[in-house]
Amino acid sequence: MGKFYGIGIGPGDKELLTLKAVKILQKIDVLIIPEARKSKGSIAYEIAKEYINPTAEIIYTEFPMVNDREIMYEAGKNVALIVESCVAEGKAIAFITLGDPSIYSTYSYILKNLNTKVEVETIPGITSFCASAAMLNRPLVTGEEILSIIPATADEERIKSAIDVSGGQAFMKVFNHSEKLMRILCEKELIDSSVMVKRCGLDGCEVVYNIEERMKEDKQYLSIVISRKE
Amino acid sequence: MGKFYGIGIGPGDKELLTLKAVKILQKIDVLIIPEARKSKGSIAYEIAKEYINPTAEIIYTEFPMVNDREIMYEAGKNVALIVESCVAEGKAIAFITLGDPSIYSTYSYILKNLNTKVEVETIPGITSFCASAAMLNRPLVTGEEILSIIPATADEERIKSAIDVSGGQAFMKVFNHSEKLMRILCEKELIDSSVMVKRCGLDGCEVVYNIEERMKEDKQYLSIVISRKE
Repeated sequence: MGKFYGIGIGPGDKELLTLKAVKILQKIDVLIIPEARKSKGSIAYEIAKEYINPTAEIIYTEFPMVNDREIMYEAGKNVALIVESCVAEGKAIAFITLGDPSIYSTYSYILKNLNTKVEVETIPGITSFCASAAMLNRPLVTGEEILSIIPATADEERIKSAIDVSGGQAFMKVFNHSEKLMRILCEKELIDSSVMVKRCGLDGCEVVYNIEERMKEDKQYLSIVISRKE
Repeated sequence: MGKFYGIGIGPGDKELLTLKAVKILQKIDVLIIPEARKSKGSIAYEIAKEYINPTAEIIYTEFPMVNDREIMYEAGKNVALIVESCVAEGKAIAFITLGDPSIYSTYSYILKNLNTKVEVETIPGITSFCASAAMLNRPLVTGEEILSIIPATADEERIKSAIDVSGGQAFMKVFNHSEKLMRILCEKELIDSSVMVKRCGLDGCEVVYNIEERMKEDKQYLSIVISRKE
């Protein structure tokens, strides 16, 4: 019988793949690569490609990065059909995802649609917030503090409540929401302790401390902001 | 000049170390191993030992796992002195930590005490909550949901507020706080969607679905509970 692997490949640095991710990528028969837009390529593939079985078949599939759950569900259904057909042929097929497959990954929309008889193994990955904190040599949380992982796309009042209860915060999906996020960070007096990490571990990686000045100009899909109440 | 490495080795599975963690462990001169109690051994060392430079000097150091920040700070100061002395001798010295060094790690107490002239590199690790979700093939969060990482040791009202604002939750440090946590999960109607993972990736690893029955008996330091509003 074939098997389906959902593999987290970490935030960008090629050395932040796990031994398990590499071992599986080296033996797969088929790799599905999600592209945000058709023929636009895939950052995930660029990170993982040197570890992928060179004889593996590569299937590109369009996977829109949108907030519309119905569109994501439909995209997941399409990939699930491909997976089921490959597994029925006895193949080992993998889907790779930036960061970790359980945190804001399109992978969940595939799992939702997949025939439950398909054998699935999910390989966790290094998250962008852990990698960013590591790059800054600073903790996200200690002791009894709560850590909030917050998509900047969330409702503003909800974001503020999450900040209020937590000692540390990581803001994801900052792209196109930087003004809203900056307003919230100012109101919560977190702007000075917040740091933005752009393209963590990728070419053009940059740490931005003066985010009040620099955030407005940010048009980088892969930016995250981490902050901590001191 | 020497260098200090803080290395996350993941939750337990030896294949969940990153390539970078292994590369550094293979070349270090000195390894500091934190022991919760003197001569009680270290789970972190058991996980990492096959990758450690066999000629590396091993220094065991007592690092109490307590909620008293002053005691942790003092323990961190002792380790920082060892690190500074090794780095001054030009050595590469590493501290290993379960999971990720930025999330509830004693590592932060070393950094706080360390002379800022010491060169530091932090290597992120796979978190127990990502590994547990992967083991269950289920997402922690999707879309615009907030993820709360909650130590069960935190204030009860604060825990409830964090649950209210978030779509997914991971409860850490469940040990000795399972009754309190169960009461909260029942009140928030999360008890049925919650799953406990014991010793994720280690010998004796177990997934517990009927946590209402089983949680009371839990005396396992390395248990975590993940839950999600459906």
